[in-house]
Amino acid sequence: MIYADNAATTKLDIDAFEAMKPFMLDEYGNASQPYFFAKRPKMAIKEARKIIAECIGAKPEEIFFTSGGSESDNWAIKRFTTFASDIRHIITSNIEHHAVLHSVESEKMYSNAQVFYLNVDEKGVVNPEELESILKRDRTSIATSESTLISVMLANNEIGTIQPIKQLAAIAHNYGAIFHTDAVQAVGHIPINVKQLGVSMLSASAHKFNGPKGVGFLYSRSDLVNYIDGGNQERGLRAGTENVAGIVGMAVALKKNCIEMEAHEKKIRELEGLLIDKLNHSGLDYIRNGTNQLPGNISLSFANAEGEMLLHRMDLKKICISTGSACDSVNTRVSHVIKAIGVSRKYANGTIRISLGRNNTEDDVNSIAEAIVSILKG
Amino acid sequence: MIYADNAATTKLDIDAFEAMKPFMLDEYGNASQPYFFAKRPKMAIKEARKIIAECIGAKPEEIFFTSGGSESDNWAIKRFTTFASDIRHIITSNIEHHAVLHSVESEKMYSNAQVFYLNVDEKGVVNPEELESILKRDRTSIATSESTLISVMLANNEIGTIQPIKQLAAIAHNYGAIFHTDAVQAVGHIPINVKQLGVSMLSASAHKFNGPKGVGFLYSRSDLVNYIDGGNQERGLRAGTENVAGIVGMAVALKKNCIEMEAHEKKIRELEGLLIDKLNHSGLDYIRNGTNQLPGNISLSFANAEGEMLLHRMDLKKICISTGSACDSVNTRVSHVIKAIGVSRKYANGTIRISLGRNNTEDDVNSIAEAIVSILKG
Repeated sequence: MIYADNAATTKLDIDAFEAMKPFMLDEYGNASQPYFFAKRPKMAIKEARKIIAECIGAKPEEIFFTSGGSESDNWAIKRFTTFASDIRHIITSNIEHHAVLHSVESEKMYSNAQVFYLNVDEKGVVNPEELESILKRDRTSIATSESTLISVMLANNEIGTIQPIKQLAAIAHNYGAIFHTDAVQAVGHIPINVKQLGVSMLSASAHKFNGPKGVGFLYSRSDLVNYIDGGNQERGLRAGTENVAGIVGMAVALKKNCIEMEAHEKKIRELEGLLIDKLNHSGLDYIRNGTNQLPGNISLSFANAEGEMLLHRMDLKKICISTGSACDSVNTRVSHVIKAIGVSRKYANGTIRISLGRNNTEDDVNSIAEAIVSILKG
Repeated sequence: MIYADNAATTKLDIDAFEAMKPFMLDEYGNASQPYFFAKRPKMAIKEARKIIAECIGAKPEEIFFTSGGSESDNWAIKRFTTFASDIRHIITSNIEHHAVLHSVESEKMYSNAQVFYLNVDEKGVVNPEELESILKRDRTSIATSESTLISVMLANNEIGTIQPIKQLAAIAHNYGAIFHTDAVQAVGHIPINVKQLGVSMLSASAHKFNGPKGVGFLYSRSDLVNYIDGGNQERGLRAGTENVAGIVGMAVALKKNCIEMEAHEKKIRELEGLLIDKLNHSGLDYIRNGTNQLPGNISLSFANAEGEMLLHRMDLKKICISTGSACDSVNTRVSHVIKAIGVSRKYANGTIRISLGRNNTEDDVNSIAEAIVSILKG
């Protein structure tokens, strides 16, 4: 098998698994209890919080553990409340992940939030000037800083485009707004420092960076409303007995990915180049979507082809790739991202996403290229 | 070490761990993808849903996977919405877990829900007549069935009392209300059939029945609002890449506990009897709280003692017990449950919870009894 869908999920790092094992087998104490048997799980959670904070330039107390990226996004965006004197403004882009877009719609429906969508150019880049002009225009109607939230993803899951988050966050803060970034695809893959980026909140998911499924985190230096009411876990904001093994596995995986980041990126960029080279020499009519992409995220649109057919033919050759985002693969229509960047009809239907990871090899890439060529030219 | 805090969390079953392993190591595909490598995770989730449904007499499509019991409770209770024409009524008891009580408070604050609290008697039992009288009194003000929710726990975490859920649910349904039960302490420990109980919703948490931490489920045959917006997982109601290993581990643990339930209960009841016998012969002045308790849930209030001191002294002897609920152990005040059942001042401060599980032995129980006697009489 060739696994080239690393943007959907990644293989759990073996060191992360080994670090999780003791907390699944012997050290099963409830970390919220006061006795000796709770000490190791409690210390492990504390250490994990510190490690994760260090990896993204945050303070440990700004890291909140969640069940994954979607929960983190929901938590960052939803306030669940409407006060007549405090109509929320939410500004987001039209290529966000559905965890953001649907949370925003939910806030619109339940909390009467007023929503603005930022457009992207044909490479999927948000224009900081558009953000500034919206904020300038609506300055008078924005009552307090707490009532304006801007949410723009760090890197797009479908086309890999990395956004100018630093610029966007600086503009946001000039207008007293809170800036959230969905960094689910980026964390563990490119250097991230929340202080340098200037973001108020950032979402991440462990299984996207070789950690376990079912755990993630939200960085926040802004006030949060409770997401899960109950016990006092996560400073009383997100209740539930801590998933100790998951949290430990996430920290180990992130630390390892951060240490090895440069080497991985170098290798993956080379594999990318090789793949593109092969395709360029094949004579196939295609375009690569996005710009300034995440390492390994390769969105390709082939002329007069059918992405879904291509995925299934690749599947028969035991090669895993994706059409659009993981969450949308049941849906065969052109994705909202491909629409937003205006891929023409001739190419849009023929879109696939190949996402390479640290475990991929030159052989993998050769096989992927050969498979695509033989399917589309065969 | 003697672990006698099985109501806080339980040791992961080794078969559950072994069943999780392949999905942590090799079968790491994203279950929402359409290719062959997603097939085993997808089938494993389907099979887990079926197993869990069978264990509680539900249909597979009525089982929704969550990150644990607190999330399940929050999901069941919160609607996040206020429409002038649809003021929600929520009826709950005053001895619920904080995941329920605080969710109810949140609904009161954000959605203007009108809340009624059912009292319990000195054994912690809710009175079905009180429920009926509230419903009768407020019949005219209850606009639609959707707007009244009743949430009463199946068994209390602190004192073990099992509630007359079947009676309560029948009354609720006579008045067109939705009935939710927090069964986090009960699932996997006593026989549960949602159809026979007549409940509309039921919450459970894997780590309370020898499954992994960080995963749980909500049974629901009522309409649910989205809890996590995003992808199409859990029928579009709870987004996020599925925690395949966690879900599989939960199903294996629950099935095993259900198969071995009678044998475990018999053994645990015997250990309980032994402990109570020993204490009765010790001459210590104490009361046992609750009635019709869950197997192994032993809440004891010792005269003129200090529960926290007792816990710490037991801790020094490497015996893990609890004061109040796990979530409240940072809090040394008398718990809301002990207050609600009216334990007198003389005994209330001296409350501890010993919770035996399937791994406890006669030796454990002898040591626990001896330790208590030596601490309190020493």
